[in-house]
Amino acid sequence: MRILFIGDVVGQSGCNAITAHLPEMIADWRIDLVVVNGENAAGGFGITEAIYHELIAAGADAVTLGNHSWDKKEALTFIERAPRLVRPLNYIPGAPGRGSALVEAKNGQRALVINALGRLFMMDPVNDPFGLLDEEISACPLRKDADAIVVDFHCEASSEKLVAGYFCDGRVSLVAGTHTHTPTADHRILPGGTAYITDAGMTGDYESVIGIKKEEMLRRLTTGIPSGRFEAADGTATICGIAVETDDRTGLALRVSPVRMGGILEQIIPQFWTGT
Amino acid sequence: MRILFIGDVVGQSGCNAITAHLPEMIADWRIDLVVVNGENAAGGFGITEAIYHELIAAGADAVTLGNHSWDKKEALTFIERAPRLVRPLNYIPGAPGRGSALVEAKNGQRALVINALGRLFMMDPVNDPFGLLDEEISACPLRKDADAIVVDFHCEASSEKLVAGYFCDGRVSLVAGTHTHTPTADHRILPGGTAYITDAGMTGDYESVIGIKKEEMLRRLTTGIPSGRFEAADGTATICGIAVETDDRTGLALRVSPVRMGGILEQIIPQFWTGT
Amino acid sequence: MRILFIGDVVGQSGCNAITAHLPEMIADWRIDLVVVNGENAAGGFGITEAIYHELIAAGADAVTLGNHSWDKKEALTFIERAPRLVRPLNYIPGAPGRGSALVEAKNGQRALVINALGRLFMMDPVNDPFGLLDEEISACPLRKDADAIVVDFHCEASSEKLVAGYFCDGRVSLVAGTHTHTPTADHRILPGGTAYITDAGMTGDYESVIGIKKEEMLRRLTTGIPSGRFEAADGTATICGIAVETDDRTGLALRVSPVRMGGILEQIIPQFWTGT
Amino acid sequence: MRILFIGDVVGQSGCNAITAHLPEMIADWRIDLVVVNGENAAGGFGITEAIYHELIAAGADAVTLGNHSWDKKEALTFIERAPRLVRPLNYIPGAPGRGSALVEAKNGQRALVINALGRLFMMDPVNDPFGLLDEEISACPLRKDADAIVVDFHCEASSEKLVAGYFCDGRVSLVAGTHTHTPTADHRILPGGTAYITDAGMTGDYESVIGIKKEEMLRRLTTGIPSGRFEAADGTATICGIAVETDDRTGLALRVSPVRMGGILEQIIPQFWTGT
Ligand SMILES: [Fe+2]
Ligand SMILES: [Fe+2]
Ligand SMILES: [Fe+2]
Ligand SMILES: [Fe+2]
Ligand SMILES: [Fe+2]
Ligand SMILES: [Fe+2]
Ligand SMILES: [Fe+2]
Ligand SMILES: [Fe+2]
Repeated sequence: MRILFIGDVVGQSGCNAITAHLPEMIADWRIDLVVVNGENAAGGFGITEAIYHELIAAGADAVTLGNHSWDKKEALTFIERAPRLVRPLNYIPGAPGRGSALVEAKNGQRALVINALGRLFMMDPVNDPFGLLDEEISACPLRKDADAIVVDFHCEASSEKLVAGYFCDGRVSLVAGTHTHTPTADHRILPGGTAYITDAGMTGDYESVIGIKKEEMLRRLTTGIPSGRFEAADGTATICGIAVETDDRTGLALRVSPVRMGGILEQIIPQFWTGT
Repeated sequence: MRILFIGDVVGQSGCNAITAHLPEMIADWRIDLVVVNGENAAGGFGITEAIYHELIAAGADAVTLGNHSWDKKEALTFIERAPRLVRPLNYIPGAPGRGSALVEAKNGQRALVINALGRLFMMDPVNDPFGLLDEEISACPLRKDADAIVVDFHCEASSEKLVAGYFCDGRVSLVAGTHTHTPTADHRILPGGTAYITDAGMTGDYESVIGIKKEEMLRRLTTGIPSGRFEAADGTATICGIAVETDDRTGLALRVSPVRMGGILEQIIPQFWTGT
Repeated sequence: MRILFIGDVVGQSGCNAITAHLPEMIADWRIDLVVVNGENAAGGFGITEAIYHELIAAGADAVTLGNHSWDKKEALTFIERAPRLVRPLNYIPGAPGRGSALVEAKNGQRALVINALGRLFMMDPVNDPFGLLDEEISACPLRKDADAIVVDFHCEASSEKLVAGYFCDGRVSLVAGTHTHTPTADHRILPGGTAYITDAGMTGDYESVIGIKKEEMLRRLTTGIPSGRFEAADGTATICGIAVETDDRTGLALRVSPVRMGGILEQIIPQFWTGT
Repeated sequence: MRILFIGDVVGQSGCNAITAHLPEMIADWRIDLVVVNGENAAGGFGITEAIYHELIAAGADAVTLGNHSWDKKEALTFIERAPRLVRPLNYIPGAPGRGSALVEAKNGQRALVINALGRLFMMDPVNDPFGLLDEEISACPLRKDADAIVVDFHCEASSEKLVAGYFCDGRVSLVAGTHTHTPTADHRILPGGTAYITDAGMTGDYESVIGIKKEEMLRRLTTGIPSGRFEAADGTATICGIAVETDDRTGLALRVSPVRMGGILEQIIPQFWTGT
């Protein structure tokens, strides 16, 4: 299966890039499954129902969230009628929505998409993600009940993301970190066969501070005094993510490559899908 | 000037890689200035005098530190006789050592090397790094008193590192983030001419959790129960860093490239130095 | 029922005070139930089996823990043969020991003792305490299955402790906060009948920084440089806690008073037990 | 000199209590100096110019702030024309206002009032408070240039407040902690003669969660889902603070007593001022 995971889409800039380019990426690379982190899609903070549908219409098979899940209050309600919207599985039981979704991929195969929040340096107290990850994966095992399993592990600390990677290694197709809004260059296939990247990076305007206009961020951190609102930067986005090709017999990763298209970052696309 | 900045060297594995490969990298690429972050060089935690000299002997012109500066107690004293060892400049005044050093590069030019600690999610309370960075840069301006200025900004949050980058943009040659032990793929030249990367990555064994053997890290985070010590992983290291070529007339960056050599990460070397 | 809850016993100084005075307090005041927080009893960090038995021998009917539960490794094993030792109930499932214990009080009545860790500003990530508190209290309700219920809510933030108080109000006899090692003066009976105090205070030498010798604490915080170990202060302890008299028909609080005996703090004992 | 320090005044409830009772407390107890923490006076978040004048009119000789200093944007400007309004001294240099003020007490004596923010568990990164405290106290020493010195040390951790107390011991009249909105019962005179309390407590409605209506606080912490705004509770306030009588020859403390008047907390007033 060909999987494309796209990191935190930030604001209008990020949404525009997805709408403009995702359909042709899917067609050109014959992608089977697209997972998009949408926690910052609505102006940098949260997601709306309209934007959720925009992402799905552009080709996302599932949309994941993170610590900004509920920034837009409507998400608390529309998530119930948005079966492909996945919020962190380790919220306090009773939270709206779901922490995982078994979706049908474009090729008809079954993909389990899981979202989890890490805890180190994160402000929102959540429950242990690892036990719940284990439950989810055990309840819908790779090959038996899912042809691919994608885990979006959303947190600050690289150590915790690596632990998530090794914890799931051999049992899921991909563990992709999100939240720092900065792509890492440590993509690889872990010893057990799971593709891994510490952070997929954001899909937004990089001439900014993590997608937010840099002027207020600079003032805030260098003077300690708030002087305005945080607004999403509006320059051209770099679409950032990770491409994984799995072995259909095992559901594990055969190849992994970063994706960085458009905007100011150095560009890269998966050579193994474009090589002829 | 040709500058090579190498991220957090972790344990014996990292030191071995530096000793084995740095001399020929310097020779092959005709590097003028090497800055190495050494805060984890001694078994993962701190630095010793012997290791400092080992790094200098291998070709480092300056060694920077971070939140682990004083993990080995001897650093509190030997730093006074280690003129090329630079600890964070925003420690409480009176701390041993120095927060910046003007060193002579291999080509005889003057390079100012500065180390600063960020504050978001960092456990050690330190003073405002930005005002002090401004003071240092103003006291020894690029071109006038320094032919290159390298800032090692050591912290957790990508946002704070980006703020450091933009804050210094146009006034220093390079702002290289450290501390997360994970290389980022957002290297670029900022609008004002300063080379930037959110994290240079660690120089250590990546088959680990940020350079530490993964078994205990996994147990600790997935059970909540400490059951052993953290030890540096001992597989082959990937040397991770960033290469910058500056314009001698301005001291600003002309070219920037990540460096990742050895170990399990995808390899990359600066094409602009190897192209003939 | 007459309940005495004693806050974090710190080091030898705290243990000595308990051994020397608790038996006569129990006798003089005809106390039915004594709960002691012992997370710092072993030299300031954790608890040993010997000290656990010492506290029980002095009259404790249950010993609670906190973020320092496992500082002494032996606690991970001896807790299984220490039925009156209660660790936080919101550890990751599988942790040794128990998060609550139904103990027989000195008058033969049944008392449920629960320990929970809060999450704000606490370094150890733990699961949501409130849902688990609700489960425990529902499974062993006041009056029906327990004649008294005592909750030791261990955390940093006063806000979270107050939330715990109101959350349990009317369903437990006492919510006593611990962890800050500083007695608060906001003891009261909440509207639903539950006795409450934000922090019971430590039982240790107050001529110190939260029970630790003040010299190293001062150096560490004012210079930022570690220069020695943290050791428990060894002056005379103040026994700090809270006394509650419950209504036998309801299990709820009729009277509440702080207890502060010995050492340098202003002294106070429950007038309602000494009035004759 | 007779000094009354009043902890965080929260919202209309707190302001009403000050307006209604402070004038007669000053008269009855012949108080010479009143310092009031006003960081939450405006609806729980920050301070306005009108409220500042209300507190001064009621008898405050100085008003201190904390982490909520700039919650009301107008504070950034009106502080410049509010000579008795004191914000934390360890903000990044260039912040509006002042970190200390030498005010004339009601008896004509000179009192230095200092405000400082601690750093442990505080979200706003600020500079080292201890070095700056030392500078302030050295520049205006007790007896020589000030007849009394009052330090409002505003932070979360009891350990850091105790360090502030011992750090200033013998050089100031009073170190009063603020911020937790919970009065502590560890008031005392430190060995060097400085009066100390870990937290003076809030002046607000205690039938709440730290002065905020408890319903939303409970929902937020027990479900993890924001569902409304935080609003100041509006029941009758308890005026909480600490009373100190200093020796005019030394400026140090002779007597210290908590003050808790009105509302639901156990009441206490300084016996040494009411003993006739
Ligand atoms: Fe995000
Ligand atoms: Fe996030
Ligand atoms: Fe490091
Ligand atoms: Fe570090
Ligand atoms: Fe404790
Ligand atoms: Fe504790
Ligand atoms: Fe406050
Ligand atoms: Fe505050």
